[in-house]
Amino acid sequence: MTDPARATVVPVALGSRAYEIVIGADLIAAAGAELARRFPGARYAVITDETVAEHHLDRFTAGLADADLGYSTIVVQPGESSKSFETLASVVDGVLSARLERGDLLIALGGGVIGDLVGFAAGIVRRGMRFVQVPTTLLAQVDSSVGGKTGINTRHGKNLVGLFHQPSLVLADTAALDTLSERHLRAGYAEVVKYGLIDDPAFFDWLEIHRGEIFAGGPARAEAVARACRAKAEVVRIDEKETGPRALLNLGHTFGHALETATDYDAERLVHGEGVAIGMVLAHEFSARLNLASPDDAVRAARHLAAAGLPTTLAEVPGGVGTVDGLMQAIFQDKKVKRGRLTFVLTRGIGKAFVADDVVPELVRDFLADKLVG
Amino acid sequence: MTDPARATVVPVALGSRAYEIVIGADLIAAAGAELARRFPGARYAVITDETVAEHHLDRFTAGLADADLGYSTIVVQPGESSKSFETLASVVDGVLSARLERGDLLIALGGGVIGDLVGFAAGIVRRGMRFVQVPTTLLAQVDSSVGGKTGINTRHGKNLVGLFHQPSLVLADTAALDTLSERHLRAGYAEVVKYGLIDDPAFFDWLEIHRGEIFAGGPARAEAVARACRAKAEVVRIDEKETGPRALLNLGHTFGHALETATDYDAERLVHGEGVAIGMVLAHEFSARLNLASPDDAVRAARHLAAAGLPTTLAEVPGGVGTVDGLMQAIFQDKKVKRGRLTFVLTRGIGKAFVADDVVPELVRDFLADKLVG
Ligand SMILES: NC(=O)c1ccc[n+]([C@@H]2O[C@H](COP(=O)([O-])OP(=O)(O)OC[C@H]3O[C@@H](n4cnc5c(N)ncnc54)[C@H](O)[C@@H]3O)[C@@H](O)[C@H]2O)c1
Ligand SMILES: NC(=O)c1ccc[n+]([C@@H]2O[C@H](COP(=O)([O-])OP(=O)(O)OC[C@H]3O[C@@H](n4cnc5c(N)ncnc54)[C@H](O)[C@@H]3O)[C@@H](O)[C@H]2O)c1
Ligand SMILES: [Zn+2]
Ligand SMILES: [Zn+2]
Repeated sequence: MTDPARATVVPVALGSRAYEIVIGADLIAAAGAELARRFPGARYAVITDETVAEHHLDRFTAGLADADLGYSTIVVQPGESSKSFETLASVVDGVLSARLERGDLLIALGGGVIGDLVGFAAGIVRRGMRFVQVPTTLLAQVDSSVGGKTGINTRHGKNLVGLFHQPSLVLADTAALDTLSERHLRAGYAEVVKYGLIDDPAFFDWLEIHRGEIFAGGPARAEAVARACRAKAEVVRIDEKETGPRALLNLGHTFGHALETATDYDAERLVHGEGVAIGMVLAHEFSARLNLASPDDAVRAARHLAAAGLPTTLAEVPGGVGTVDGLMQAIFQDKKVKRGRLTFVLTRGIGKAFVADDVVPELVRDFLADKLVG
Repeated sequence: MTDPARATVVPVALGSRAYEIVIGADLIAAAGAELARRFPGARYAVITDETVAEHHLDRFTAGLADADLGYSTIVVQPGESSKSFETLASVVDGVLSARLERGDLLIALGGGVIGDLVGFAAGIVRRGMRFVQVPTTLLAQVDSSVGGKTGINTRHGKNLVGLFHQPSLVLADTAALDTLSERHLRAGYAEVVKYGLIDDPAFFDWLEIHRGEIFAGGPARAEAVARACRAKAEVVRIDEKETGPRALLNLGHTFGHALETATDYDAERLVHGEGVAIGMVLAHEFSARLNLASPDDAVRAARHLAAAGLPTTLAEVPGGVGTVDGLMQAIFQDKKVKRGRLTFVLTRGIGKAFVADDVVPELVRDFLADKLVG
């Protein structure tokens, strides 16, 4: 069990909303003592989903009990469908039933679904309570638990309702990923690779060497999580409310979202990280086609993602991705169109991504049409 | 129709969240032009309740149409029961259906219920949209539309869920109050008087002279609203998130909430402002009993409120207010108890209220017991 005092700590420098991301193996068991030290006198509502509860809830609450902390637990259904008004209302009701006061904390124990849902609930109960992220998926550890974006889905689209509410602490237990499915581990890995591709070629080089160890659970896993968190924390510091540079984090996501739409957000066919993996390769290939980057970089990015077991081409999407018209429609829906031009994250090579706000839609269409035929 | 350029403007100085309260007769009809000037290019979702819609919606939307502004309307049921997760979800759905973008605005046309509900919806759609308060009750004009507190009720209590989200503009049409019931006008007036009692004895003097004109709708009405808004804006400026001085605004509210609880929040028996009227008199009487203030001030406060048609004694509550045990329980529920002491707004006389955090519960109990017997 990692002594939290020896864990890696990544600060998120947001002034009065600053917090720390603590990263290490078996932090879940050590969380009670850590919380007792950081939030004296507080009580907790631990919110998780059934699958995560099965694997990790007992160990987590045993640590709370050992530290003599008062807590309640609220368990919701696993899956994206829990990011709804109904589940939000039931979590809020559970927190109020537990008689938590404004100084107490909510705990989001789970993946990005739990993090987004619980962060939202924390933001609105008693007009704002503190909360702790305990991310248990790789995606949540390197992406969704950091930055304070919270939200739920509606019939009009994903994440259209929510708020910015920063956690007071993130405890990323890298050993918790041992119970995660291979597929979700890979999907989260796509987001790790993203940070290398955006602006850190040395990190990408390092990932090429350490990928195996990250998947197997060696010390490189915690290091990968820490480096990814540092990258995200820096972007969040500069652009907390996502009005500018934070857009770089969308590398691969415009194409990725279009693929998720084309597969009806059916997780059996495509999970988010898989869409992002294909999307990042497409962004590199499209940049190469615009003569912004060397085609070799697209090949290198694709080779690495494929070695991790991720899909990298449209042809790999089960059931196909439909027509070029369908994809273009999804892209227009996702993006704001300014004077007929699209905003896209493009790249000049590995680690040299940039935001282009003048992409001509016809060029995207031609590119996708070519990709679809082969 | 008041030319908005000649209306009274009260600034709310909150840095990047600063906004203006514009006060004058018939601003509803002039709102379209004013919005066009202030928010070029924006579209609107106008949210109101059925009763307000009947009296004021057509005039409001006619102004929008005249100014060539795009808008949708969403009409909810009148009454406190609309401050619910269900109605919140339906308002959010309506706003998304109207395809409002992040630069567009929501408009809260109505009383405090609509303001609290729409402010909350604005705070969470697309993680925060701008909104305009167009308060149509006196209570909303002098209290709820200013300060950014938004929220809904749950079975655990009132306003337990919500967030701080400041409006971008408040347009208080004092002529809109002409269609309001006498009872609601009086209830709002209790909150006007509150500002005098807190820290502005000259305002209280002025109210003693101008009460009739305020109710009748003369120029004193706009002046009363402006002075109340100035007072609230100043408290909000100093303590936006209600961590300290803003507590003074709760003068009369601890007793008042206990009376609302004792009457099951049944508006037939007692509306909020009536509870506050009785509560303010009790706060003065209790302060006199503690030898903090002269009993004459309690008499003077009561006389003014009674002259306005407001109840000022427990005996006036239809159906009674139950036992002293019941009232004390409600008080303990409302207030945080610190080391066995209660926090209360007490007073040293008209315009000399202060926050006391060391009130001995037994003294409150004895006082209420005496009041209950007569
Ligand atoms: N807030 C943000 O900034 C942000 C960023 C990216 C993604 N997101 C959101 O994150 C969500 C996706 O996150 P996710 O992929 O973590 O999804 P998730 O929370 O649904 O987790 C995926 C699955 O893994 C299970 N699981 C979680 N931890 C486990 C563990 N340790 N062992 C075994 N099973 C485990 C879950 O029960 C679930 O079935 C989406 O809703 C997305 O919108 C948010
Ligand atoms: N956010 C805050 O800071 C704050 C402060 C005080 C009170 N509040 C909240 O405000 C609410 C009470 O506000 P309220 O008294 O305005 O209640 P309300 O909005 O329910 O209005 C009272 C009644 O008057 C009707 N009405 C409104 N304007 C009218 C008009 N011009 N003509 C005719 N009828 C009209 C409404 O339809 C309603 O039936 C409560 O929910 C309370 O919690 C909030
Ligand atoms: Zn992503
Ligand atoms: Zn009040």
